[in-house]
Amino acid sequence: MPQHAIRIDPERLKTLLNGVNRFGFVPETGGYTRPGFTQVDLECRDWFEAQMRADDLQVWRDGALNLFGRYGPEDGPCVMAGSHLDTVVNGGAFDGALGACVALECVRTMKDAGITPRTAIEVAATSEEEGRFGGMLGSQAISGAITPAWIEQAIDADGIRLRDAMNSLGLEPMDILKAARPAGSINAFLELHIEQGPVLEAEEFPIGIAEEVSGVCYLELELTGIANHSGTTPMHLRADAFAGLSELAGTIPDLIQMHGTDQSRFTIGHVELSPNHPHTIPGRAVFSVILRDTSEEIMVGLKSRFLESADIVANRHRLKLNKTERSWLSPVSLDSELADKLASLAERNELPARRMPSGAGHDAQTMQSFCPSGLIFVPSRAGISHAPEEHSDWSDIEKGANLMLQALLDLSG
Amino acid sequence: MPQHAIRIDPERLKTLLNGVNRFGFVPETGGYTRPGFTQVDLECRDWFEAQMRADDLQVWRDGALNLFGRYGPEDGPCVMAGSHLDTVVNGGAFDGALGACVALECVRTMKDAGITPRTAIEVAATSEEEGRFGGMLGSQAISGAITPAWIEQAIDADGIRLRDAMNSLGLEPMDILKAARPAGSINAFLELHIEQGPVLEAEEFPIGIAEEVSGVCYLELELTGIANHSGTTPMHLRADAFAGLSELAGTIPDLIQMHGTDQSRFTIGHVELSPNHPHTIPGRAVFSVILRDTSEEIMVGLKSRFLESADIVANRHRLKLNKTERSWLSPVSLDSELADKLASLAERNELPARRMPSGAGHDAQTMQSFCPSGLIFVPSRAGISHAPEEHSDWSDIEKGANLMLQALLDLSG
Repeated sequence: MPQHAIRIDPERLKTLLNGVNRFGFVPETGGYTRPGFTQVDLECRDWFEAQMRADDLQVWRDGALNLFGRYGPEDGPCVMAGSHLDTVVNGGAFDGALGACVALECVRTMKDAGITPRTAIEVAATSEEEGRFGGMLGSQAISGAITPAWIEQAIDADGIRLRDAMNSLGLEPMDILKAARPAGSINAFLELHIEQGPVLEAEEFPIGIAEEVSGVCYLELELTGIANHSGTTPMHLRADAFAGLSELAGTIPDLIQMHGTDQSRFTIGHVELSPNHPHTIPGRAVFSVILRDTSEEIMVGLKSRFLESADIVANRHRLKLNKTERSWLSPVSLDSELADKLASLAERNELPARRMPSGAGHDAQTMQSFCPSGLIFVPSRAGISHAPEEHSDWSDIEKGANLMLQALLDLSG
Repeated sequence: MPQHAIRIDPERLKTLLNGVNRFGFVPETGGYTRPGFTQVDLECRDWFEAQMRADDLQVWRDGALNLFGRYGPEDGPCVMAGSHLDTVVNGGAFDGALGACVALECVRTMKDAGITPRTAIEVAATSEEEGRFGGMLGSQAISGAITPAWIEQAIDADGIRLRDAMNSLGLEPMDILKAARPAGSINAFLELHIEQGPVLEAEEFPIGIAEEVSGVCYLELELTGIANHSGTTPMHLRADAFAGLSELAGTIPDLIQMHGTDQSRFTIGHVELSPNHPHTIPGRAVFSVILRDTSEEIMVGLKSRFLESADIVANRHRLKLNKTERSWLSPVSLDSELADKLASLAERNELPARRMPSGAGHDAQTMQSFCPSGLIFVPSRAGISHAPEEHSDWSDIEKGANLMLQALLDLSG
């Protein structure tokens, strides 16, 4: 059978994905909770590692909890393929896990077809991509972008420090630094991921090829006023942290209208009020602001104008404002030659593919700073993601996985 | 010593209040957390009951957990004085507890002076005034205003049902109904409370005499949209529950400006987002709205216009809106003859007193539907209440407590 005629096994892929999703399932919602550096994340990795060992791959994990399975020559550079195994709280079945499973399924298909690559292929199940600690820890570690200072200060939205989360799992935080790969050791990185947006479904493409990825700025703001009785304090004398927060949130639509683009996104997703009691004026509001755009210049402008508004609103409401920039990931242009290659392979295999930007952040954007990187999308039903309703049709997944297979065959020679 | 010359003992009063505040102290904040129908609330009542027994009062508690200590004739109507022992979460040292302690201190002072009242005095430590379950449960039970249906549906902001909270303390919820006093059994109800607002301090009065009490409407609203990825979902296609909530909160200042009065208060104090994750658009927001005014007509108008705005905002953001009215306490005019009596006693005792409205709800307003009721305020430093910083000067408290003593001497004959 000629290489361009071999195909992945969708049933075997589905079984593998279902295996991953036995970890972190939330029966009440139908979602999955498998955040990076939790016990359930570790158990999921143990299970995935066992699968790769059963496939006779050369298996190991690095100091950042990235998991690898190597197929082909023991030495020399590799072509890496994969995605992350962690999820957001109550996320969907496909985000991340699908890409790791597709990479392993491609290797299994090559093995079944008796194909040994000239350049090794490494299946990667990266760690902590969802930003629990404010970045994309796994792929940043591989590409050598993590600093000791960052490890020291990294803390999640519940106030748990990265170092404590790792220690409680028996891991040494500074080992993250040892995960950095030597220059030239990875020829290319390929990732398949669900689109998480509505474009492919609306335009009826089974496959997307990402050309650029939005940057992500993660701000944490704290407004502090005075907790007081809801009945006796006249409205004009209040220092109401929630009134300040809601006024600030109300400035976002005009801010985007005037200074953003159609790729601009602002999200206030995490809010904690204190004391959070119906009859008490909120004395404190801590909240996250996630800002994204495909242009760094636009991001910089939106951020500074938003923080200006925050100062003005805080002042008007007699609130103290604390601003922390938890992380800044710049927008990234993915490798254009790799995107061209993916497009021509798709065309040769009669797989309709649309070239497009990515609104979401992905490991591929981090890896692009280290090696040429490519990103294949499959459609998301109704564009829904990070939620139990997340779904991609298996007929589309199969097409995307076969494009990944063709690309790995091509790049591993 | 003539009756108008006897005085309460401020040191003994302070010791009593400190005793109450050993229950529910929160060392991290300096506040007090003693919500109604919790274990710590029960322990506090046990301790206060033991104090009254040591004073040889006739002591019992009713089915709503109100605690009474009777001094004087065993039979016949009484004059009741007191306030509540429960607090909000992380509240102050004075709100409620001071009034119960002042009532007991007045009885102790009368006993020391050898005065036996012709009409019995009942010291009342009422239960659950802070509205954990949406009303002022203790005084509503005494005045016969609680229905079985209300008991069945009562639920707190954390989703704990009143009946479950009571069962877990070994209490029978329907016993609340047995707490209703027979008509004519209470000649008058007197309450001393901190003002919880800035008026007395600003105008340098040590004492306030409340003439009317704002009504309180407690709404719980739920906005449901779609939890989705913060990067891929274009702003105009979101169903963001927090964006809807903040836009709705932003309508409040204009609403009060156009349809409210200087006594109108709107507070959004309790907010829960789901999934409450920085990188996910909030799919659901549940929040409390507390609306107050001294005019029922104004309250009705503000409520209906606010709910209209909620419908419009929900529609614009593609959100489903659920509205629940957790409780409605109408504004109340307190007994004018009793207020006149308090004012003349204050004048006779050279205690400067200001007649004023009350923005906060109090047991006295509930009791007014059952018997003539009066409410004495002492100043709150900076108007702060429902917070650890809550404070009243002991020189003011002493004056207020002595006015209470004179009123009890007068009313109990």
